[in-house]
Amino acid sequence: MTSDSGVSPKTIHAADLRIDARWVIPIEPAGVVLEHHAVLIQGDRIAAVIPQQDADTGYRAKETIRLDSHVVMPGLINLHGHAAMSLFRGLADDLPLMTWLNDHIWPAEGRYVDESFIFDGTRLAIAEMLRTGTTTFSDMYFFPEVVAELAHDTGIRAQVCFPLLDFPTMWGSGPDDYLAKGTALIERWQGDDYVAPAIGPHAPYTVSDEPLRQCLALAQDKQVAIQIHLHETAFEVSDALAKTGRRPTERLAELGLLGPGLQCVHMTQIDDTDVRLLRESGAHVVHCPESNLKLASGLCPTERLRQAGVNVTIGTDGAASNNDLDLFGEVRTAAMLAKVVADDAAALSAHQALAMATLNGAKALGRDHELGSLVAGKRADLIAVDLGDPFLQPVYDPASHLVYSNHSRQVSHSWINGVPQVQDGRLTRIDVPDLMLKVQAWADTIRSGQTG
Amino acid sequence: MTSDSGVSPKTIHAADLRIDARWVIPIEPAGVVLEHHAVLIQGDRIAAVIPQQDADTGYRAKETIRLDSHVVMPGLINLHGHAAMSLFRGLADDLPLMTWLNDHIWPAEGRYVDESFIFDGTRLAIAEMLRTGTTTFSDMYFFPEVVAELAHDTGIRAQVCFPLLDFPTMWGSGPDDYLAKGTALIERWQGDDYVAPAIGPHAPYTVSDEPLRQCLALAQDKQVAIQIHLHETAFEVSDALAKTGRRPTERLAELGLLGPGLQCVHMTQIDDTDVRLLRESGAHVVHCPESNLKLASGLCPTERLRQAGVNVTIGTDGAASNNDLDLFGEVRTAAMLAKVVADDAAALSAHQALAMATLNGAKALGRDHELGSLVAGKRADLIAVDLGDPFLQPVYDPASHLVYSNHSRQVSHSWINGVPQVQDGRLTRIDVPDLMLKVQAWADTIRSGQTG
Repeated sequence: MTSDSGVSPKTIHAADLRIDARWVIPIEPAGVVLEHHAVLIQGDRIAAVIPQQDADTGYRAKETIRLDSHVVMPGLINLHGHAAMSLFRGLADDLPLMTWLNDHIWPAEGRYVDESFIFDGTRLAIAEMLRTGTTTFSDMYFFPEVVAELAHDTGIRAQVCFPLLDFPTMWGSGPDDYLAKGTALIERWQGDDYVAPAIGPHAPYTVSDEPLRQCLALAQDKQVAIQIHLHETAFEVSDALAKTGRRPTERLAELGLLGPGLQCVHMTQIDDTDVRLLRESGAHVVHCPESNLKLASGLCPTERLRQAGVNVTIGTDGAASNNDLDLFGEVRTAAMLAKVVADDAAALSAHQALAMATLNGAKALGRDHELGSLVAGKRADLIAVDLGDPFLQPVYDPASHLVYSNHSRQVSHSWINGVPQVQDGRLTRIDVPDLMLKVQAWADTIRSGQTG
Repeated sequence: MTSDSGVSPKTIHAADLRIDARWVIPIEPAGVVLEHHAVLIQGDRIAAVIPQQDADTGYRAKETIRLDSHVVMPGLINLHGHAAMSLFRGLADDLPLMTWLNDHIWPAEGRYVDESFIFDGTRLAIAEMLRTGTTTFSDMYFFPEVVAELAHDTGIRAQVCFPLLDFPTMWGSGPDDYLAKGTALIERWQGDDYVAPAIGPHAPYTVSDEPLRQCLALAQDKQVAIQIHLHETAFEVSDALAKTGRRPTERLAELGLLGPGLQCVHMTQIDDTDVRLLRESGAHVVHCPESNLKLASGLCPTERLRQAGVNVTIGTDGAASNNDLDLFGEVRTAAMLAKVVADDAAALSAHQALAMATLNGAKALGRDHELGSLVAGKRADLIAVDLGDPFLQPVYDPASHLVYSNHSRQVSHSWINGVPQVQDGRLTRIDVPDLMLKVQAWADTIRSGQTG
C-alpha cells in the first residue's frame, strides 16, 4: 500500500457502516461460523461479509463498530403471535386451552380490547421483541390497521394478518365485514417495505368453508399469504374426523388453501397424510413449542417434517401463553424438544435451529430473496449478541451458545433496513418510560376488573 | 404510639437485616404470595416474615433494604450437577448420550481433569449458580475434596457426592480406593454448616452389587445420603431387563438402597413397579428436564410421581449437557414439559414448580427443617428477583413470572446463612475478573487440544 507500489490502485467501495465482529453466522452458507469478519452496510442493504483485512483494503466506511465478543447474525423472524396480548402476560396460567380461552382470555378481550389497547400492547410487544433480537414478526389480532401503522412507524418488519372468524368480535360483525376491512388493509399496505398485509382465518373449527374460499380468492387476487391455527390439539383433529370424516389438513387441501402461500401454525398432530399434504403442497409449518407445552396441546414432530422437506419456522405465540416473546428462548426449547420427540440427540442441530428462526421464516413470508441471511444484496436486518458475559464462558462454538445457553438479554445491537433499533442493549426508537406508564395504567385497569 | 398512650410498651426485637419486599413467596404455606411484607434476619436465621407495618413497630434492624419491585423467596436448590464441567460448556452438542460420553466427554475428562481444573471449573459453576439464584447445589464429580473446600470457603451450601464406579478414573483406582477416599471426605466434612458429604455411585450399569452394598453400609454408618443416576435412558432399563430380568429400581430395592436416603437422578423411564417402589421406599427423584431433552434421554412423568406422593426435586445436570446452570430456566422447562407429558395444562402449577426447586430439594437433603422456605427459625438462605424490568411488565402474578417469563439475570440479591452473596446483581465473594482469566486459559488449552 505504499505510494510507489507497482500494483494498480484497488477500487475502494463506500459503506455507511462497517461492523467488525468476533464471529459472524451468516446462515447462508449453512452451518458456517466466520471469525473476525466485517459486515458492510450501504443504505438498507448488506454490501459485503468479508474478512476484516479485506474490508481494510476494499472499503471506506462512514462509521465502524467493533464488536469483539459478539456474534453478528440475521435478525430473528417470529412467525406467529398476538402482539397486544402482552398486556395479558401471566393473567391466567396452568389451564387447558379451551378453559383458558373461554373463561379467561376471550372474556378479557371482550372487556378491554380496543384500538388503544392494541396500540399500547403491540408497542410493548415490539419493544420486547426488538430487545431480544427479533427484526420481523407476524401478528394475528384485532385492529390490524393499528398494528400496521405502529410497525411501520417504529421501523420493524411485520406480517399483519387480519383476523377472520364465523362469529362477531370487537373488530367486525362477521366474515363479510372482516373481509371488507381486511381488503382495505391489504390495499393500504401492499408493497410497503415494512408491513406485509396478510389474511388470518382463525382456525378450521372457527371458520366455515365459504369464508375460507373467500380468503383464498382474496389471497390469489392480491398475492398475499394466509396464516391459520391448524392441528393445535388432538381434540381439534378427532372432532373434525368425527364430524366430517376428514382431517383439517384434508379439508384445507380440498378447499385449495394448502399451498406455498399457507402458514400452518402449531401442527402438533401429524400423521402420514399430513406429512404428504404438507410436502406436496409446499405449505409452511410454524412451530410454537412453548405454547404447545404450556397449554398441553402436544408436540410438533419438527424433525420428521424437516426430513420430509417441509419448511418449518418458529413463533412465540402470544405472551399470554408463553409467557414472553423471547425468540431465542423459543429456539432453545425447540432444539431441545426436537431431540426427545425424534428420539435422536442429533435432531435439529444448533445451526438448523438458528436457520428455523431466520431463513426458514423468510421463506414462509416469500421474502428469502431479501431476508433471513447475511448475503450481499439482501436487506440489512441483523443483530449482534454479546457472548462476553462471564457466565457464558467458555465459548467453543458460538452457535451452540446462541441456542443452548440462556442469553436473550445479551442482544446488544439490532438494525432493520440498516437503521439502528437497539444500541448497547437500549431501544433507539421506543420511549420505554412512556410505554411503561401506559402499560401500568392498563395493568391497573385489568387487575381491578379481575378482582372487582 | 404517643408517649402518653395507656398501652404498655411493646417489646422491640433486634434484627441484623430487614428486607422490605414488594412480594414475598415463602413456599410455606404453599401457594401464598405476601404483599409488602418484611423479612427479618438475625444472625444466620430468619427471625420473622411479617407485614411491613408490624416490622415498623416490632423490630429495630441494623440495616434495611427496600426492594420495591422484587420478589423475595427461598434460595434455589439445584439437586444434581457436575459443577466443574462448566469448563466443557458447549464443547460437544447434538449427540446421543453414549456417543457424547464415549467420544467426547470421557476423553476430555481423561485429558484435562485434575485438581486445578476442578477448582477453576467449580468456581465458574458456583459463580453462575449464585448469579442465577441457587444457594444450595449438589455435586457429583472428581476430586470432591476440592469442591467441598471451595463451597465452604465461598459460603455456598453444597452436597458433595464422591464418585464411585467399577473402573478406575483420574480420582481413584477402583471401588475400594473410592470408598477409602470417600470415607475420609465424609469424616472431614460431616457436621459442617455448608458442606454435606454424600455418596455418588455413578449408575447401576457402572457399579456392581458389592460396591453398591458397601455404599449402603457407609451411608448407614455415617448417616449420609446416596445420589445415583437412575433410569436415565430406555436402553439402561431394557438392557438391565435383558441381562438380569430386573429393572434397575428393583435391583436397588433388593440391595436395600431404595429408601429416604436415596436421590434418584433422571428417572425418564417409569412404570407402575417403579412408582410403587419409589412411593413405598420414600426415595427422592431428581428431575433434570433440559439434559433429558437435549440428550434425547426421555421424559420424566413428574406429575404422575407427584400425585403418587413421591418427592420430586430438580437439577440442571452439568453445563456440558444443558448448557447452563440457570435453575429458573430449568424450572420453566419443567413446568411447561410436565403439562404436555401429563396431557393436563394444570399439571405442575407455578407454585408447585417453585416448591420443587426449594422445599422439595431441602427434603431430599434431609434439611427441610432448616432450608427450603421462609419460615421463622430456618436458615437465612434467600434471594430477591427484580420484576421491575420493562420487558416483564405487566405483573399480575409474580409466581407466574418467576416460572414462565424468562428472567434469571433479574436475580438481584442472594443471602446464604444471612451472608450477602449477590448484591444488585454483583457477586460479593468471587473475584470474577480473576476467574475469567483462569477460564480463558483453560478454554485455550482445551480448544487447542480439540483441533491439534
